[in-house]
Amino acid sequence: MKEKLEQLKTILAEVSDLQGAAALLGWDQQTYMPPGGAEARGYQLSTLSRLAHTKFTASEVGELLEDLKPYAEDLDPDSDQARLIQVTEREYKKATKVPADFVAEFAQVTTMAHGAWENAREEDDFSKFQPHLEKIIDMARQYAEFFAPYEHVYDPLLDMYEPGMKTAAVREIFAKLRPLQVELIQAIGEEEQVDDSFLYQAFDKQSQWDFGVDVITKYGYDWKRGRQDDAVHPFTTSFGIDDVRITTRVNPDFLNTALFGTLHEGGHAIYEQGFSPALARTPLASGASLAVHESQSRMYENLVGRSYDFWVHFYPHLQEVFPSQLGNISSETFYKGVNKVEPSLIRVEADEATYNLHIMLRLELEIALMERQVEVSDLPAAWNARVEEYLGVTPPTDREGVLQDVHWSAGLFGYFSTYALGNLISAQLWEKINQDIPDLPEQIRSGEFSSLLEWLRTNIHSHGAKFEPQELVKRVTGSQIDSVPYMAYLRKKYGEIYGV
Amino acid sequence: MKEKLEQLKTILAEVSDLQGAAALLGWDQQTYMPPGGAEARGYQLSTLSRLAHTKFTASEVGELLEDLKPYAEDLDPDSDQARLIQVTEREYKKATKVPADFVAEFAQVTTMAHGAWENAREEDDFSKFQPHLEKIIDMARQYAEFFAPYEHVYDPLLDMYEPGMKTAAVREIFAKLRPLQVELIQAIGEEEQVDDSFLYQAFDKQSQWDFGVDVITKYGYDWKRGRQDDAVHPFTTSFGIDDVRITTRVNPDFLNTALFGTLHEGGHAIYEQGFSPALARTPLASGASLAVHESQSRMYENLVGRSYDFWVHFYPHLQEVFPSQLGNISSETFYKGVNKVEPSLIRVEADEATYNLHIMLRLELEIALMERQVEVSDLPAAWNARVEEYLGVTPPTDREGVLQDVHWSAGLFGYFSTYALGNLISAQLWEKINQDIPDLPEQIRSGEFSSLLEWLRTNIHSHGAKFEPQELVKRVTGSQIDSVPYMAYLRKKYGEIYGV
Repeated sequence: MKEKLEQLKTILAEVSDLQGAAALLGWDQQTYMPPGGAEARGYQLSTLSRLAHTKFTASEVGELLEDLKPYAEDLDPDSDQARLIQVTEREYKKATKVPADFVAEFAQVTTMAHGAWENAREEDDFSKFQPHLEKIIDMARQYAEFFAPYEHVYDPLLDMYEPGMKTAAVREIFAKLRPLQVELIQAIGEEEQVDDSFLYQAFDKQSQWDFGVDVITKYGYDWKRGRQDDAVHPFTTSFGIDDVRITTRVNPDFLNTALFGTLHEGGHAIYEQGFSPALARTPLASGASLAVHESQSRMYENLVGRSYDFWVHFYPHLQEVFPSQLGNISSETFYKGVNKVEPSLIRVEADEATYNLHIMLRLELEIALMERQVEVSDLPAAWNARVEEYLGVTPPTDREGVLQDVHWSAGLFGYFSTYALGNLISAQLWEKINQDIPDLPEQIRSGEFSSLLEWLRTNIHSHGAKFEPQELVKRVTGSQIDSVPYMAYLRKKYGEIYGV
Repeated sequence: MKEKLEQLKTILAEVSDLQGAAALLGWDQQTYMPPGGAEARGYQLSTLSRLAHTKFTASEVGELLEDLKPYAEDLDPDSDQARLIQVTEREYKKATKVPADFVAEFAQVTTMAHGAWENAREEDDFSKFQPHLEKIIDMARQYAEFFAPYEHVYDPLLDMYEPGMKTAAVREIFAKLRPLQVELIQAIGEEEQVDDSFLYQAFDKQSQWDFGVDVITKYGYDWKRGRQDDAVHPFTTSFGIDDVRITTRVNPDFLNTALFGTLHEGGHAIYEQGFSPALARTPLASGASLAVHESQSRMYENLVGRSYDFWVHFYPHLQEVFPSQLGNISSETFYKGVNKVEPSLIRVEADEATYNLHIMLRLELEIALMERQVEVSDLPAAWNARVEEYLGVTPPTDREGVLQDVHWSAGLFGYFSTYALGNLISAQLWEKINQDIPDLPEQIRSGEFSSLLEWLRTNIHSHGAKFEPQELVKRVTGSQIDSVPYMAYLRKKYGEIYGV
């Protein structure tokens, strides 16, 4: 059996090598590739992903998994080996249920759809995107059928990003949270608003870059095993546990973009740098789910990086870096400024209090589309109605409404809720961390982040993808994914800032 | 038959994709990869090259080639299709004659040898490298046996880098050239020496970088299809015809390093950017040989970049960039300085008059080792004797002698002569180009390089690897590879500079 396990691991290692190579090609594409390189890069990426898929879905893998079943049953169920067999089997089933022809067609459809979306968005003309989105949703329904029977037609989509998560569970979580968040932002809207105009000034780009680097270095990002480069759309990528790279974008006239962008990607990267080395070149060297991944980036960006304690330590330094811009701004004013709440149209610019509402409306519409409760042609109106209901603002154009996100055009249907779930998980973990490290606020005030990192390494990072998200959260916090800690966090924070 | 050709091309395209991906991984390794990335990168590169090798040597390829033989015979023998089938068959035979086990063992042996060589060189102790080199030469002999019968045991090694080239031919070329070059540098040694001390001053790194960029832009390097980055050991690499990248190294205290380095790599890159687009993703999208490749880099570095005409155009600008360093140096003095001849110990620092002698002694020793005329233990003494005979200088240490080059430790046995052959080809082409473009010197004096580029595109670049090096040179110049034009070039140039 040892031998069969080694055979399986050899195949998985090759798949991982191909995926790592493809990730580097993707990184280069978004950082340094000259424009002429695009066509050949497309071929290379498609060849690598096809080879990885073919290797992973080979019948040999299925046979090895079958043979290894009795062996796995005798192992400690939490051991790396048992989990490797279990997770590989889960992913193998998923990958083999979807015909290669479908995958190829979907790639073509989304390539076309992406171009159409760019066009539609530029011209603010939803009708140009509509037929493509209809096709994508058709195919999303076909995809779901590969996994029939299911509890809900949306489950297989969700499961791509959140293994084991059910539509019913997400709906229940959001149903509880939504009215409370709506109520909170209404209350905030009635109070005196905070000033954040000082964030919109000219800030030297290199100094912005260096400040972000300084923060994530203190967080524990390991530069011997990573680097940061410029990219239009910031992202984190890795080619192994010991090479996890981030990118950022610096806006010379707005401080938040690079600062919180770097902290966010730094959080993702610190997670990936923390996978146990024993998991290298296996499917377990991955985040537990997108939501768990997002919990790490959001924690370092928001729960740490937008906290008052954090700025007690870092603000004097920031003032030294930008004396003319921030010399007369108190730390109190600055803290409030970076936490300003303002219902707005664009998800990616949303604050902590409103962000989840952007997600909820997308999730509801995705489910309604899958259930055929809403037609694609009705989508702009349905979108606008929800934005008004939840956020109290009205998109003047579809560009600032239903056309704003790239996800659907890229076929990422089922993806959005991971952002909001990530917020919720971050607050659940934060509550537990603060119980386990009672003086964490004081540590943060002294710029000391090593206990936090150690806690995350032990409880989250090192496990990689061994546990499904619900199981992981339950093991660590004692409860499944839940919105109560996040709501409590928002109430406390904005209670202090806005007096609500 | 069309269908079988398409099948073959599909496989070759996949192999090309894998090789292109591997090349990007190699580029990243030498430019941006954090140190932690090395281990996973090793695995990824080995997986990609193994998959490429397996795909290319699959029996399916052999069968398709066999089936396509009658078809190829009916084609125009110079057509892309006929040449594709011919070159693929040649490379297929080479690749399938060498057992996979041998390839794997050779990779291991050279990995060990490379470490041992670094050590031996650092400690100036040849005995530490000796057993590794013995093993490598043993394996080089084994490699040759895979290709028995051969005219000369060294032929299969040479053929790896110079398809179709024979040891006897190279020996004959060099035998004619060597005494003439030795005589020339002796004559130069008796004349008044030129001053190049002004090249060793502090030069701003960014300004050096920008100057090199300006020159190769005028040469015709297409930045939309390439880029330049920093690297310790400069190189050119490509991931397709439309993404050909160079690297350079800037020495803040010596002007030549970055300047001529960029011109040299620019020459390699301009070659690769000029392959016919019809050859993309086939084995024909490659240089004809290493020597032909080197002819392009040497031409742009030396025949153009170290010519007086070139500096008539560029020197005033260089003086503007570095007024305090070069303001008082005349263009005549500068031209002589960058063409200073000085017999020295280190190949990579050698000038145009002495360079080939460094190569010849290496080739002779490689052949003698293969023929068992020299034992590895006698190599340092044999090396020093030849350096004295050809160059009139004596290596005080093996570090400055037999241990100076990385090539043997990397298993690159048979490689060196391509450098000297490249010099010879560059002069042969240069003679022909100047016949075809009589006012080329005036064009160069005006910074006009487009006729030169067009000539090279038509006669050399666009063909890629369609023709073997001897055939290509013959088609273009009417004669096979020959040393007469190079010797004439050296005599004329140094006759003017040194009055010999």
